[in-house]
Amino acid sequence: MAKKPTQKASGGHSVSPLAPKSFPRLPPLAGVRLATAQAGVRYKGRTDVLMALFAPGTQVAGVFTKSRTASAPVLWCRDRLKGARNGETSARVLVVNSGNANAFTGKAGLDGVREIAAEAAQVAGCHAGEVFMASTGVIGEPLPAGKITAVLSDLARQAAAGAWREAADAIMTTDTYPKGATATAMIDGVKVTINGIAKGSGMIAPDMATMLSFVFTDASLPASVLQDCLSAGVGPSFNSITVDSDTSTSDTLILFATGKGGKHAAVAKASDKRLTDFRRSLDAVLLDLALQVVKDGEGAQKLIRVDVTGAENDGAAKRIALSIANSPLVKTAIAGNDANWGRIVMAVGKAGEAADRDRLKISFGGHVVAENGMRAAKYNEKTATRAVAGREVQIAVELGLGNGAARVWTCDLTHGYIDINGSYRS
Amino acid sequence: MAKKPTQKASGGHSVSPLAPKSFPRLPPLAGVRLATAQAGVRYKGRTDVLMALFAPGTQVAGVFTKSRTASAPVLWCRDRLKGARNGETSARVLVVNSGNANAFTGKAGLDGVREIAAEAAQVAGCHAGEVFMASTGVIGEPLPAGKITAVLSDLARQAAAGAWREAADAIMTTDTYPKGATATAMIDGVKVTINGIAKGSGMIAPDMATMLSFVFTDASLPASVLQDCLSAGVGPSFNSITVDSDTSTSDTLILFATGKGGKHAAVAKASDKRLTDFRRSLDAVLLDLALQVVKDGEGAQKLIRVDVTGAENDGAAKRIALSIANSPLVKTAIAGNDANWGRIVMAVGKAGEAADRDRLKISFGGHVVAENGMRAAKYNEKTATRAVAGREVQIAVELGLGNGAARVWTCDLTHGYIDINGSYRS
Repeated sequence: MAKKPTQKASGGHSVSPLAPKSFPRLPPLAGVRLATAQAGVRYKGRTDVLMALFAPGTQVAGVFTKSRTASAPVLWCRDRLKGARNGETSARVLVVNSGNANAFTGKAGLDGVREIAAEAAQVAGCHAGEVFMASTGVIGEPLPAGKITAVLSDLARQAAAGAWREAADAIMTTDTYPKGATATAMIDGVKVTINGIAKGSGMIAPDMATMLSFVFTDASLPASVLQDCLSAGVGPSFNSITVDSDTSTSDTLILFATGKGGKHAAVAKASDKRLTDFRRSLDAVLLDLALQVVKDGEGAQKLIRVDVTGAENDGAAKRIALSIANSPLVKTAIAGNDANWGRIVMAVGKAGEAADRDRLKISFGGHVVAENGMRAAKYNEKTATRAVAGREVQIAVELGLGNGAARVWTCDLTHGYIDINGSYRS
Repeated sequence: MAKKPTQKASGGHSVSPLAPKSFPRLPPLAGVRLATAQAGVRYKGRTDVLMALFAPGTQVAGVFTKSRTASAPVLWCRDRLKGARNGETSARVLVVNSGNANAFTGKAGLDGVREIAAEAAQVAGCHAGEVFMASTGVIGEPLPAGKITAVLSDLARQAAAGAWREAADAIMTTDTYPKGATATAMIDGVKVTINGIAKGSGMIAPDMATMLSFVFTDASLPASVLQDCLSAGVGPSFNSITVDSDTSTSDTLILFATGKGGKHAAVAKASDKRLTDFRRSLDAVLLDLALQVVKDGEGAQKLIRVDVTGAENDGAAKRIALSIANSPLVKTAIAGNDANWGRIVMAVGKAGEAADRDRLKISFGGHVVAENGMRAAKYNEKTATRAVAGREVQIAVELGLGNGAARVWTCDLTHGYIDINGSYRS
């Protein structure tokens, strides 16, 4: 693991108080080599390009932003995955740059993607169609693709197993710390490893949370199985977090499986019971990374968990949970240690889903603050305030109407968010 | 007009730089008398109860929040209007308090409403069903109805024509200035007057913008006509503004017509051509008040107008316009004088409506910043920055797909919003 200090966020903001104590220890993964460089796309004095090289035959799956104005690399990756899903295409290279999103950059943006894919394929000895790509940063600025292609041959030469932290560092934008997670799992008695990295801090909302995340495993699984596992895993993780309700043009989550770990039986369906443990570990890595993104939400001082139960159905529960989690008034109140539960009532009321005032029950950290259509009889201002004053806040809403349930995470809305976003481009 | 200085906002925040230079001169209106009092509902040293008394036979119409957790006075007024619409009920009294929203206050909340209605009817010599009511302030706190009923008989005695500014002052919460508007109109050759007051600053979003507004006219129009005029007028005014995307439990807009102005011909339908001028003036008063609410958006330093054209239909245009107007990233960028048009692209992309990257055209203050799928060829950073640096910012988005159009207004998102909302209850 790298010993050098984490590089600074693009705006020089101090590290989130919710950051993990250290970057986790991610083991090397057979079939994956990594390298990073300072290409000077936008930032000075820090790495901004990551290149990952994969063993031949690496399978791949992905989930992308639903934005109607998706970036050029997102369009490129979607096209590549069409071939990957039926096994035609494998993944040999991933190139990621930070500092420029290559979004809304017109034909020049797509030309840049092609240029990078061609050069990456050249230095890696594969087809351009086996190159995956992601860009994050300012929207609408032309991408200086030449700065990226210029470093690729050096990167391919230097690429080594285990440079996970350097990889997580290179893809940061306003992130205040690099994000990584790892887990192991047994498939049919054989141990496999899953490593993941992510970046994301602002412009975070489903679907899906604005961020880039790349997950790697040495398991041997076909693309169609990977895709089903990933599509299911993104729901309760990256699609259940929000920082500011703003959905990015660049959201990208890609899962690569090299098949270079221990030999295990072939598995042809995601529903195969031999994948239960693998899927549990994959879900854990995705959730871990997603929570690291929320904890690094721009200006975040608190992690807020919102549980909604008793809704008409799960979809209604999620819409109500997001209405609470996206409410600026809820988020500013919690930032101010104010147990203003009336704003939870407001957010439930505006969600457009069925709600009955007299059946609603609201709790902060397990302390019931409202029920039976009014402030709870045992309401205690001190207890309620204590429940919202810590680094982790739990809001629970029981609607009393059905069995629908959802859990989402968000962060508080503070002066830091305004500071960071008032001058992002300058 | 009152000479005393405007009372302070509840948090003592300084007056919005977007405030009008002075409260407009609202003339007395035949059939309306007003009085205010310091009842001490929550605030100290300022008025917090408004009583308006109307001539017998006054007709009434209203539009209310769509929240599923609407306040007790909203439920009460909705019930009253059922009778008013078919002419059974007239309006004789309006009682408004600030400091407490009487929302999510259970049976006690409705009891409080009944208590106030009974006392108001007693002192005004009418039926309780002719009393309209509104409350604004903290949600979930029991309403001290006794403090309000205690001042009503004095208010009825003191009530006088022309105390419009005092009325606007008494209903303020976090507002930094009182809001009033006036217009005249001709109905069938007879001049009538329309006066309106409003309060609202945060928790502002359609439908409908979180606020209270009361509009009064001396015209002689039946309730059904008033309702049609009001329901149509609210769309491009109060339903086209947003401060923070949060919809209140208390939104109330009521229109009273005393019929005590000059005699004009009876008009039985809102579509009657003799009402064209009246409706234009009513719409102007509603828009004036709505814009005053946005200009007093919590922490607002800038008024932002968003025009969307070329959408598939008007509904799609409005959803895209609101996606832009509610985006924290758009609003913080403009607060920071940053012409970050990429965030407009993002907000268009996340709206869920049809959009074609290559047909999209985005302008700031008339300067085209993006078109043909990329930054505009004639883009000029200085011109773009100048367009977002002033007090009034105009964003225009042409989608190039159809004839749908919408216009909405919002304000920027600044440190002031965080300051005001982090400690609202304390």
